Amino acid sequence: MSFKENKTEITALGEFGLIKHLTKDNKIKHPETVKAVGDDAAVIDVGDKYMLVSTDLLLEGIHFDLTYMPLKHLGYKSIIVNLSDIYAMNGLAKQVTVSIGLSNRFGLEAVEELYKGITLACEQYNVDLVGGDTSSSRQGLIISVTAVGEISKEKVTYRSGAKFNDLLVVSGDLGGSFMGLQLLEREKSVFSENPEIQPDLGGNDYVLERQLKPEARKDIIEQFEQFQIKPTAMIDISDGLASEVIHICDQSGCGANIYDEKIPIDHTTYQLARDFELDPSVVALNGGEDYELLFTVAQSDYDKIKNNPHFTVIGHITDKASGINLIAKNGTSHELTAQGWDAFLRKEKGL
Amino acid sequence: MSFKENKTEITALGEFGLIKHLTKDNKIKHPETVKAVGDDAAVIDVGDKYMLVSTDLLLEGIHFDLTYMPLKHLGYKSIIVNLSDIYAMNGLAKQVTVSIGLSNRFGLEAVEELYKGITLACEQYNVDLVGGDTSSSRQGLIISVTAVGEISKEKVTYRSGAKFNDLLVVSGDLGGSFMGLQLLEREKSVFSENPEIQPDLGGNDYVLERQLKPEARKDIIEQFEQFQIKPTAMIDISDGLASEVIHICDQSGCGANIYDEKIPIDHTTYQLARDFELDPSVVALNGGEDYELLFTVAQSDYDKIKNNPHFTVIGHITDKASGINLIAKNGTSHELTAQGWDAFLRKEKGL
Repeated sequence: MSFKENKTEITALGEFGLIKHLTKDNKIKHPETVKAVGDDAAVIDVGDKYMLVSTDLLLEGIHFDLTYMPLKHLGYKSIIVNLSDIYAMNGLAKQVTVSIGLSNRFGLEAVEELYKGITLACEQYNVDLVGGDTSSSRQGLIISVTAVGEISKEKVTYRSGAKFNDLLVVSGDLGGSFMGLQLLEREKSVFSENPEIQPDLGGNDYVLERQLKPEARKDIIEQFEQFQIKPTAMIDISDGLASEVIHICDQSGCGANIYDEKIPIDHTTYQLARDFELDPSVVALNGGEDYELLFTVAQSDYDKIKNNPHFTVIGHITDKASGINLIAKNGTSHELTAQGWDAFLRKEKGL
Repeated sequence: MSFKENKTEITALGEFGLIKHLTKDNKIKHPETVKAVGDDAAVIDVGDKYMLVSTDLLLEGIHFDLTYMPLKHLGYKSIIVNLSDIYAMNGLAKQVTVSIGLSNRFGLEAVEELYKGITLACEQYNVDLVGGDTSSSRQGLIISVTAVGEISKEKVTYRSGAKFNDLLVVSGDLGGSFMGLQLLEREKSVFSENPEIQPDLGGNDYVLERQLKPEARKDIIEQFEQFQIKPTAMIDISDGLASEVIHICDQSGCGANIYDEKIPIDHTTYQLARDFELDPSVVALNGGEDYELLFTVAQSDYDKIKNNPHFTVIGHITDKASGINLIAKNGTSHELTAQGWDAFLRKEKGL
């Protein structure tokens, strides 16, 4: 077929480069389409408020491994990762649709388990399951979720609103999900070499839960409302802190300084990273799948942030010319590049 | 893994049975969720109007075969099948999101072709591409599209609104897409047995286009508006006329009589069915992928329908006790069952 000839490898562009390339001539026709491609969710003007729409594809062998991912947890997580995108706009999710492709190795009991997790997430996050599609699949398990949410027009928060001197804040702690994954992968390879050995996962419940049953930060959106905190820019941390900081700076036309010593890391994550001979900061910066929120607020909002145990100020916004820098514990400054750190991480992991 | 044990085959339930089973305990929490699972699109109250959301998953090897499906056409069709669901609610589509999973056999040029078709459909149907997701895939091409539309509250049309004595009407003609598929499959198997033989597709442009580049009936929705036709129930014909009539009758709590001789079949479709030794009526009833609209109107609207070349009255709604019947050309009546006809068709096709 013709598409096999003159092939340019997609990996050269990366996911974000590919989307940017494919949508560069995308013309918006409706004034109701307030924000199209390029943020955590699309924004649609429906009159008195904005609707938010976000979609994600989860593929077996790419996004999950059923060797250690229980189907109920997978169902739960597939909803969470989409709700997180709605919260990242400062909105509340109201509805989801779920499409599933199933190869014939899955029986009814397996799909029921998956749906138990989907239903549980919908209950916990007060979301209605409103539609979807099921199909057979030649490619293992495929899950596609679309989340729909809403937000008042004055509260919608884009990646692009960060201002000079704003504080950079994260919710929760970072890197746990990645270390959970490392642990599961290690035990999987031990088991595949010697099935007699039982997995050694003890004492690491926190990181395993971060990987297998993450939560989305609806509570943070509710606290913004309660304490009248207005983030100037926001994004959810799905690809890793470094990547998300770069997105905010790119879209806001600014730079940032992040302080290594400020990055919140749970002690289980920290210790496990050390056991794996990984730098805990690198793990926190590049691990991904944390589903925490990264946001910026004006300095004048500092009093509303400082004593809240969910929030950590990790740095501040600078001008574009100053670049995006990680300030190490010894005071030296390093330019932050998602690719650079990612490459570094891969080298450490032997990938 | 536990889900391999005690396996109940999903095929025993069928797609609709599976969705019904999985969502039987689905609790709706938000009053804004007007219609959840069970119609062509979900309906969400956003204040002055309703938003419509519909989603479909298209999988290589299940829904399309890249041996004969050009990628640009596939991109176009992936949008069309979703827009058709919005039109089936009497609404207009405004936005789509597109998620794509790509195995490494696809290069940038292939994805660009796919996007050309997606972009063309968005232009033709006045729809904005507002988001999506791209991912690598272990096997083959995966496309997930979500369409968002809107409809005024008084005009939304469900599957459930058909009334006793209403007329059953279809747009366009049926069975063409299925015969296009049969032709492509035949030429594929001829080619695989002897690559020297060039495909013989001549004179069958109509059915090939119905299969490879179908259109959705936005024009019909515009005519409803123009001629003030208010369908009482509506569904799009994606699985075949028989299946869709049964959906309308099930959800409206009624029966129907359909007249075999009234079913609109294009002469190319008819002749090709004969060449393949298939009954053209069976093809039209069960072929699927026509993306025409099946709707019911009150008898009082007959004058608005009768001279419109896009519309064919194929029967009428009866009471539930009378069942769903196909009246043959000789006047005999046969109970219409989607499975029965499907099984018959499969036998004829040797499947």
